This record gives sequence, structure tokens and C-alpha cells, in this order.
Amino acid sequence: MTPNVSPLAPVSVPDMPAVAGVTFATAAAGVRYKDRTDVLLMVLDPGTAVAGVFTRSKCPSAPVEWCRAKLKGRKARALVVNSGNANAFTGKTGREACAFTARIAAKAVGCKVDDVFLASTGVIGEPLNASVFDGVMDTLIANARGDGWLDAAKAIMTTDTFPKVSTARTSIGKATVTINGIAKGAGMIMPDMGTMLSFIFTDAPIAAPLLQKLLREYVEDTFNAVTIDGDTSTSDTLLVFATGAAKGAPKISKANDPRLKGFRKAFEAVLCDLSEQVARDGEGARKLVEIEIEGAVSKQSARRIAMSIANSPLVKTAIAGEDANWGRVVMAVGKAGEPADRDKLSIWFGGIRVAHKGARDPGYDEAKVSQAMKSPKISLKVALGLGRGKDRVLTCDLTKDYVAINGDYRS
Amino acid sequence: MTPNVSPLAPVSVPDMPAVAGVTFATAAAGVRYKDRTDVLLMVLDPGTAVAGVFTRSKCPSAPVEWCRAKLKGRKARALVVNSGNANAFTGKTGREACAFTARIAAKAVGCKVDDVFLASTGVIGEPLNASVFDGVMDTLIANARGDGWLDAAKAIMTTDTFPKVSTARTSIGKATVTINGIAKGAGMIMPDMGTMLSFIFTDAPIAAPLLQKLLREYVEDTFNAVTIDGDTSTSDTLLVFATGAAKGAPKISKANDPRLKGFRKAFEAVLCDLSEQVARDGEGARKLVEIEIEGAVSKQSARRIAMSIANSPLVKTAIAGEDANWGRVVMAVGKAGEPADRDKLSIWFGGIRVAHKGARDPGYDEAKVSQAMKSPKISLKVALGLGRGKDRVLTCDLTKDYVAINGDYRS
Repeated sequence: MTPNVSPLAPVSVPDMPAVAGVTFATAAAGVRYKDRTDVLLMVLDPGTAVAGVFTRSKCPSAPVEWCRAKLKGRKARALVVNSGNANAFTGKTGREACAFTARIAAKAVGCKVDDVFLASTGVIGEPLNASVFDGVMDTLIANARGDGWLDAAKAIMTTDTFPKVSTARTSIGKATVTINGIAKGAGMIMPDMGTMLSFIFTDAPIAAPLLQKLLREYVEDTFNAVTIDGDTSTSDTLLVFATGAAKGAPKISKANDPRLKGFRKAFEAVLCDLSEQVARDGEGARKLVEIEIEGAVSKQSARRIAMSIANSPLVKTAIAGEDANWGRVVMAVGKAGEPADRDKLSIWFGGIRVAHKGARDPGYDEAKVSQAMKSPKISLKVALGLGRGKDRVLTCDLTKDYVAINGDYRS
Repeated sequence: MTPNVSPLAPVSVPDMPAVAGVTFATAAAGVRYKDRTDVLLMVLDPGTAVAGVFTRSKCPSAPVEWCRAKLKGRKARALVVNSGNANAFTGKTGREACAFTARIAAKAVGCKVDDVFLASTGVIGEPLNASVFDGVMDTLIANARGDGWLDAAKAIMTTDTFPKVSTARTSIGKATVTINGIAKGAGMIMPDMGTMLSFIFTDAPIAAPLLQKLLREYVEDTFNAVTIDGDTSTSDTLLVFATGAAKGAPKISKANDPRLKGFRKAFEAVLCDLSEQVARDGEGARKLVEIEIEGAVSKQSARRIAMSIANSPLVKTAIAGEDANWGRVVMAVGKAGEPADRDKLSIWFGGIRVAHKGARDPGYDEAKVSQAMKSPKISLKVALGLGRGKDRVLTCDLTKDYVAINGDYRS
């Protein structure tokens, strides 16, 4: 089954410039797919700082455990990503596959095994035959160059319907620095779960502890504010690499350095763009849904309420049916377990207030709301009227295609 | 849309005996539906004890707030239930509708307003026109009798595909006592959410504080262990009434009274039966799914893991697709946030172990598992290997019909 490209896919793909200190290549190692690339090798200049965040699953994949351990060294020279097999729930064999892959990559790149990072996405529970990477490693090294980012994004796709790339340029002091990112989303791979992988590369000289701090700061309202179905992969991985190779750029190691201002903005923009693309490629998605909460008792409370709405099957199916069903929104607010007062609640669909102070808004125009619900992007706002806590998350609707993608492959 | 009867409906309906001290009648008040009953009046002998548990929603319906307040009196003389309108998110009008309904019922029955209990299910956010009950109250009182329990169960249905009744008989001392129950499940009513309502009636003389204690004890592993889609109605209500009218039965007021043994068992059986029927009538359900957890660090931890699996759209769609997808079960265990060690995890589908100690079970027979997955009842067991905590919950699969029922009505 080759899914059609999501109707929510971005209309244009940005030109991706090279990032100083980063070269890469892709290959078809035959992990699972036929006639397509499934391995990506990224080679990073000596001195590259690394930061990462991972799935909160208590049963993480072998590559997630590998990266967590290697992150302590704060340095990276290579990243190997494969699609087709997630190397998750593979026990000792899985750990050995990681060690083997890192060893051959380290040898090819000429670095320490500890400086190699790994990510895998695809079927879980099947042993990953890492020997297939041995056959392509020399070619990958020989072919590595600084352009072709769309190919990199394509090699890590599973059933994503479009490759996800983003880029931003800013300056640190007088130097221009570039941030490129690629991501894959919650596409399914028969017969198993999707995984969110994203890798960001910059030539800005950002010290590793600061890079980690910035990542934690900006991931919260970007990748952590996106949900497809409330399920959490064993393999979610977001790594950031800073080569420091931008000519003339000063090394930054403090979060309050004023020269960081532009970088912060550009970094956030790339994370924001990629995470939105993930929501736009949710399984079976026909509508991008932006949920805004205001007036909650805290930001954390607002997030919990937003996620309760975003993950509610009844809200998601209503949006699929183009129904401004605020009753289900009330239900999802109520079940979040956070402070909420029915009589202070207001709800907007597409900017039109449909419920106000504990009852249907008498003034709303049904026809206008119906029109708004036909849009491919639905904004849903809830004001709780309790405090100053606010939040925003992205999700998509729940369609029959979601069930088909995830349930129909065996019959 | 008249949905077909769920393929998981019980094959037979029990004969429902009368319960001493309980009479009832139904009527068609025209709340919303045409050509069907939509009001149920239950009349209870003086001295009837009452207990109740309700939705945990922070935005409960007006009848839920009414019942919570009246429960303090511990006595009941009447119950009025309507379908077609949930009287939820209706503000002051909603509270007034409750007061009005209780007033006319109290007048008809000849009791205090405080002894009238109320429940509503159906559309939310629409004002409930309680004056329609005024027109039928005298007829209801005139028609009240002790049989016709299936009619009572039918009057409270929304888009349930079958009425839900259960009965059990036991003895207290030398007296025979009866427990009858009716329920409605998570059927949808256009355009809003479903509600779980259940009402249990017994002629056993159980003191109200003990009745409440028993209800809390047995609801935990019955109604609280059932989930359809993880969404929580604003209106869920479970009330138990004990008339004490069984001839010769001694009054019981202590939980450790040995004469309570048979009653406990019968009470649990009725709750268990009705809650399973709710799962069997989940929206679009084609499979009843029983999830058993063992070896968790505690009962509470086992419950959280069981619910994480039961509410996972990826697990539920896999079961709809008759796929023993243990990878998704691992995912759902991992995302529960509870202690779990991948390398100690074992998973069974239909009694066949498919994963063991952190990897696919090499011995399992794919053909046998495929056969087991075709059954209308799927048992899924997870052993965590950490402690003695165990739990069991019931759910159903997630099908395209669920999306159709909840998303297709507007197009």
C-alpha cells in the first residue's frame, strides 16, 4: 500500500543549503524495503557538540538506550539512521546490533565508537540484521557530501507520505550560521508502530550543555506539543548536532549570551516547522487541528487540558465529521482532571464562539461555523476563565483511514 | 441511523423477577425521540437506602450534581431517568430543570423532593424542557408495577444496540433477596457523547453507609474496569437502591457481617454482568477484549498499565484487524509510565505466548494465533515479572464503524 500524499502536506519544499561541517549519504541496504533507500549516514566534523531528547517510554528501543548512554560524552562524529526495522524489543541481539553498527561506522569515519549515534524506525520485535550496513558503509563514506537533504529525509521515512525538511539562517556576532533539520513522523510500517525521529544540524558553535538546555527549552512547545493518537513510540528520538564550523562564529556557552538571540529564534522556528509537519502527516489525517487553551490555573494545567482534548477520540472524530461539537470539548476538559468550572467555560471553533459561560452561545451563526469546519486547518480555543495559564498543541483528526492504516493489513 | 445489534450482544436475556418495594413505569414524553419511550419512573418503598458513584468529570451534568447533593440524605423514594437530553452544560436552566422534575415526581409519589434522584442521557448543551415530564407523571404513577424490567432498560437507551439487564438471587439469613440491575452504555446520541447509566435495585435491608461502602468496593473491578475509548462522560451515574422489603430479612449494617457473604457475591455478579454488557455494546465494537495484567509492582500500577493498553488506538485497531500485534502492546506498556522492564515482559494473545523475556517468543505458532484472533472475545495477557500486582479490564476494538458513528453524521 503506497499511501497518497497527505492533503495537509506543505505546498513547497525549501531549498536546503549546506551546513558547514556536515556531509552525508544514503543507501539501499535492504533492511526491509525493496527499491528504496533505507540507511542514512551523517558525518560530522571533529568537535561537534550533541544534545538529545528521547521517548518517555519505559520500554525504549536499543538505539534509544545507546544514544542516552553516548550522550554523556557530549561529542558526536557520526549518525547512522535506518528505516524498516526499529530494533525495539529485540533484547540482547538488539544491543549487539547497535554495537556492531557503531563499530563499522566508527571505523569508516575514523572516530571513536562512543561518538557514533544511532536511530532505527520500522517494525519492532524483529531482530535487526546489522550486517547489511557493513556492505554499504564504504559507499556511504565515499558518497558523503553536503547537499541532498531531501534524500536524507526520504531515507528515514516509513509510511510518511512526504519527506520533512526545514532550514533557517541567522547570525551569531558577524558570522552567518545555518540550521537544517529533517524529521519523520508517525507513519506506520506494517505491522507495527510509527516513530518520530528528527535530526537537527547547525554549524553554530554552541557548547554541548547549552545545546541540551536550548533543546529542552524549545522542544516543550514544539515536538512535545504534537500528538497524533496519544500513543508513544518506543523509539522517539530528537538529536541536535552543532559542528561549530561556521566561519568566524564565536563559541557560545552561556544561555544568557545576547549573541544567541537570533539563533534561539531560528532554532525554535526549525523545531516548530518540523513538528507541525509531523502533525500534518498523522495517519489518515485530513485536518490539522490547533488547540489553544487560555485562562487555566497554570501552563502545566493548560497543557494537560489541551492534550486531553487533542487525544479524545470523540473530539477527533467530530472534527473529521466537520462538526463543531463543543459538547465533546467540554467532556474532554472535564476528564482532564484539572481545575475547570463549567460555568466559566468558553469555546471557539475557527474563531467563532460557540459556547459561553456554561451554555451554548445564543449568538453563534451555525452556517458560519459549518463553513469554518470545512477548512483543512481547524483552530479550537478554550478559555477556562480561572487564571493565566495558556498553551497550544497541534494534532490531527481521527478518520476511517487511520483505522484502515492501522487495522486493515490483516483480514 | 438505527444501528444493528452488536454482534457481541448476550445470546439470551434473563427472566427478571420483581424486587419487593420497587415498582416502575415508562412513558414516551417526546424529549427528543419519536415513537419510543424516553422516561422511566422508579418508585421505591419508604425506608429505601441509596448509594451512588458518579463520573470523575470536572464538568458534571446537572443531574449528577443533584444526585451528589441528595445522596447525603441516604434515603430515596423515586428515580426519574430520561433519555434524549443529558441536561449537561445547561447552566442555571439545567439546575432548574432538575428541581422542577424532582418537584413533580415528589408530588406524584408523595415524598420529599430531597428523596428524588435524577439521571439524564442524550444530547448535551441543549436546555432540557422538563415540562414534558409533567404531562406523563400521573400516567407513570398509575402504571407503575413490579415487572417489565426490559422496558425500563429500553427507555434509558440512547444508541445502545441492546437493552442491558441483569439479576441475581441470594439469601440473607433465611430470607431470599433479589438484586436487579439495568444499564445503558456508551452509545452515541447525535450529535453528542454517550453516557453510562446504571441502576441497581434490591429488596435486601442494607444500611445506606454499608451500601455505599459495598458499591465503592465492587465498582472498582467492574464498571471502573471498563473503557470504550478513554473518554469520560459528564453524566456517568451508578445508583443502588435497597428497599429492605424482602420478607424476614434481617437489617445489615456492618461490612463484616457473615450473613452478607451471599449478597456480596450476587451484588458483584450483577455489577460484573452489566459492566461487561457495556463493553459488549461499545460503539462499533466487533470484539470484546479482556486485558489481564500480572506481575506489576502493585494493583494500581497494573490498572494503569491495563488502561494504557485498553485505551491505545494502535492496540485497538490491531485487534480490529485480527492482528496479534504484541509490539503495540509493548508500546502501550511503555507509555503507561509505570515500572516495567522490557527484558522481563511476556505477552499472550488468546492464551498463546507470543513474546517472552524481551523478544518474540521463538516457539509460537503463527497459524494458531491467527485463529485465536478471529474469536469475538480476545484475551490479552501481559506478565511484567516485577511483583504481585494484577488487574483485569474490559474494552472493545476500534473499528471504522466507531469513526462512522462518531464522525459521519454531518457531511
